[in-house]
Amino acid sequence: MSASANPEFMQRAIRLACENVRSGNGGPFAALIVKDGVVVAEAANSVTSTNDPTAHGEVNAIRQACKTLGTFTLQGCEMYSSCEPCPMCLAAIYWARIETVYFGCDCEDAARAGFDDSFLYKELRLPRSERMLKTVQLMPTEAWESFQTWIDAENKVDY
Amino acid sequence: MSASANPEFMQRAIRLACENVRSGNGGPFAALIVKDGVVVAEAANSVTSTNDPTAHGEVNAIRQACKTLGTFTLQGCEMYSSCEPCPMCLAAIYWARIETVYFGCDCEDAARAGFDDSFLYKELRLPRSERMLKTVQLMPTEAWESFQTWIDAENKVDY
Repeated sequence: MSASANPEFMQRAIRLACENVRSGNGGPFAALIVKDGVVVAEAANSVTSTNDPTAHGEVNAIRQACKTLGTFTLQGCEMYSSCEPCPMCLAAIYWARIETVYFGCDCEDAARAGFDDSFLYKELRLPRSERMLKTVQLMPTEAWESFQTWIDAENKVDY
Repeated sequence: MSASANPEFMQRAIRLACENVRSGNGGPFAALIVKDGVVVAEAANSVTSTNDPTAHGEVNAIRQACKTLGTFTLQGCEMYSSCEPCPMCLAAIYWARIETVYFGCDCEDAARAGFDDSFLYKELRLPRSERMLKTVQLMPTEAWESFQTWIDAENKVDY
């Protein structure tokens, strides 16, 4: 356990994850985002109730924290998640610039409960052509226009 | 180019990505989701305008397609994206059960335009303890309650 970890926040994430199952809102996952010792967002998985496959607890918490703080990054924030993040959530955590993640169950626990994301880590490690997902490049020369437009744009908001 | 790819959809994604920069809505990325030859969603990156670091074009398109179709998976759907998906979007594509992704620019083009996600692919490949992101496990025994609640739950919606 890290010296700065606050077990109350993890207890809260676990309780939210349990309540989320009982209420029928979604899967057994919840996350809090904390800044300077204060909870700025808490959210649970809502994939099935909101018809959103990206609505994992961590992604929902990131979206809510950014809305609350009025920012699109979360520097200086920590996440407390009832479970180790899946690759989608982990990547979202990097994009959000969250600095520390405390997690309860790990991915092996999740797999035992029927939530196995190891296939996804394996897929992400493979070269594009070896993945199960079919990916095909089309019209790269034309598509460069999108980046050229960005490069040429004035007053753009970098992120 | 795949025999079944429709270049009009890619042209549309590229046009949306360019318009997205010009309008100031966000980064130079857009994606369409197509089912049975019909566009069911189209969306562009809105990270900076909606304060949502997860609002990449692909994630926005997935969320919109699910809303339109009233489902939380997109079996039988294809994505046309102006750029190769980042790891977050790629994982979201797997969770959404999208079967084929056509992309315009690749990740090397993106890096040349200032959007380098290669660090993220590297991080995801590393064991947890070697990543830049600090991750700490807390209270795994208590956290198992969330999964036990799920295992014991009746009438749950699997996903």
